[in-house]
Amino acid sequence: MSSPTTARADDSSAPAAGGPSDTAPGTPGADAGRTLARCRALVRPSLSAAIGRLHPWTGEMAAFSFGWCEAGGAPRDPSSEGKGVRQALAVLCAEAVGAPGESAVAGAVAVELVHAFSLMHDDIMDGDGTRRRRAAVWKAYGTGPAVLAGDALLALAVQTLAEAPGPRTGAVVGRLSETLGELVRGQAEDLLFESRPWTGAEAVRPEEYRSMAELKTGTLLGCAAALGALLGGAPARTVTALDLAGRHLGVGFQAVDDLLGIWGDPEVTGKPVYSDLRQHKKTYPVLAALAADTVHAGDLLALLTSSRPLDGERAKRAAGLVEACGGRSATVAEARRHLDAARTCLRSVPLAPGAAREMEGLLGFLLHRTV
Amino acid sequence: MSSPTTARADDSSAPAAGGPSDTAPGTPGADAGRTLARCRALVRPSLSAAIGRLHPWTGEMAAFSFGWCEAGGAPRDPSSEGKGVRQALAVLCAEAVGAPGESAVAGAVAVELVHAFSLMHDDIMDGDGTRRRRAAVWKAYGTGPAVLAGDALLALAVQTLAEAPGPRTGAVVGRLSETLGELVRGQAEDLLFESRPWTGAEAVRPEEYRSMAELKTGTLLGCAAALGALLGGAPARTVTALDLAGRHLGVGFQAVDDLLGIWGDPEVTGKPVYSDLRQHKKTYPVLAALAADTVHAGDLLALLTSSRPLDGERAKRAAGLVEACGGRSATVAEARRHLDAARTCLRSVPLAPGAAREMEGLLGFLLHRTV
Repeated sequence: MSSPTTARADDSSAPAAGGPSDTAPGTPGADAGRTLARCRALVRPSLSAAIGRLHPWTGEMAAFSFGWCEAGGAPRDPSSEGKGVRQALAVLCAEAVGAPGESAVAGAVAVELVHAFSLMHDDIMDGDGTRRRRAAVWKAYGTGPAVLAGDALLALAVQTLAEAPGPRTGAVVGRLSETLGELVRGQAEDLLFESRPWTGAEAVRPEEYRSMAELKTGTLLGCAAALGALLGGAPARTVTALDLAGRHLGVGFQAVDDLLGIWGDPEVTGKPVYSDLRQHKKTYPVLAALAADTVHAGDLLALLTSSRPLDGERAKRAAGLVEACGGRSATVAEARRHLDAARTCLRSVPLAPGAAREMEGLLGFLLHRTV
Repeated sequence: MSSPTTARADDSSAPAAGGPSDTAPGTPGADAGRTLARCRALVRPSLSAAIGRLHPWTGEMAAFSFGWCEAGGAPRDPSSEGKGVRQALAVLCAEAVGAPGESAVAGAVAVELVHAFSLMHDDIMDGDGTRRRRAAVWKAYGTGPAVLAGDALLALAVQTLAEAPGPRTGAVVGRLSETLGELVRGQAEDLLFESRPWTGAEAVRPEEYRSMAELKTGTLLGCAAALGALLGGAPARTVTALDLAGRHLGVGFQAVDDLLGIWGDPEVTGKPVYSDLRQHKKTYPVLAALAADTVHAGDLLALLTSSRPLDGERAKRAAGLVEACGGRSATVAEARRHLDAARTCLRSVPLAPGAAREMEGLLGFLLHRTV
């Protein structure tokens, strides 16, 4: 299916934030693309050098996970790499507090390493064999090696920050280690959600899902922003504001991901239509739909708890019921609320106008994305 | 079989270092036992408090791995816990540089957490279902949860040090992160050894095995010592000497482990007789035996590469061949060399006599242990 997410359609009425995700030249999407590319180019040499410090075996798995090579080490077309949102946020936050983007590079490298670590280990835990349309690391190299490569990335992230010159080593390592703890706690919650029922006293409430998303997605984006600000020499109040902006961006980002997981275009997401529903994933739209307790919620529950596979017409019907129960619009509202909160945070402290503009463009792009 | 390891028998001629591992009252073994118990009691409240910060699920897996509870959370007889060598080394090194043992507690907690993390993930990678005569965490809780719990311990270790008060946060976190990188590199080497041949140009040389042991075992004991010294306020030269002493202790410790893995008493080790040979593990005694290239090495190789299981009389014969090729005595010499080097390091800097004596007692005990 090719319809855009409601979040995108809905939020396109707020062009000041970046407008539609169209990346045609001259559009805000193209601006965000340029921002991401500029930051990627700034960070890449240090990220490559960091990976180069690893044992060749774990280094190859890391490069594979970044999309830099095929399994076995053959080079790969770099155009299919990830967006690099976290590194961009770190760089932009340093610039926003008046420092050169270069000052944030160690932080940018660290958050990209932590992100790669978490994807690598989460895919093992979730049994997800595909990541960005390719084999997950554990599928390509085996579970044990993928555990090892994740550990190597995590160690390297801490080492990168611990070795970063400057007076704030303690603070930046502290913020990273807090993030690591929160990431793991969020993943624990997410895994436990799987075995909880869809309804009743033990059901996962939408607020619990949001708390999990704050830990699992929000904390690392907040960390990226905070590290950029800290390494850029920002005062405490600015660090806190940017950290919080990043956290809100992360939760909004997750809400958009959840929308794409059901209504995203398979051509763009690389996943089958209604993917998250087929996998019975407990995501925000479904949980909000069930919590709304409308007349349709019973029908939706019957589909979700049936022993028959949730595919074809049944998946389409489930998606329709999620929408009829208000799950889709609640998730759009959730994304919008966090985008607005992120903007409010950004505007609460004095920032360099150019970087602040780029950051707002990035926010709008990310919450409108269909990729 | 009940014969002591050659290392023990051989080194008992050096009573100054601690003598036999007999733990009868009044013997050096009993002294080492008291040292370990004293340090454990000092560190335990902080270690428990740290584990208490984890998500309850990962916290339970951590407590299980420390031997504090059964799978499911029921309390357990604490007498069967691990020795706690790493925490003891951290505490003793702070005391040896004239600081109270309390000053090393954050470092002691961090190294115990890292040790537990590495066992948890290594058992997954190695497919080892048993640890200290109980189910490994991944066997008891599943692979995914064990990956998660290991990650949680690693994050908590970094956080514990990053939050430790004092002027040396950067240095202690730096030393820990270096250790993490080395641990992972050592594990990568160890895993790759498995797929290398027993002989020929690609065979694992005893020197390569030692380098792996330096990374996999030496680095964490060195880290324990260095963190204790750093947190105790030692000058750089003393930190380096204690770090190096810990590294040598670790490599010696590994050599003794390798002896016990073949000739250890199953009643004491909890593993079947000739355990490492049955599992075709490439350990120092076997690699040294094959590298010696005597007339018996061919017979040993035939047993190791045969498709028939290496058990019963065949395992006994293989152990005899390792001994006949000089693999056992080479490993004893290796353990002794590193014990001597550790002592030399300890004696190269001024240390508080009481703590230095306890440390030498611990060294002797560890390299004579049969448990």
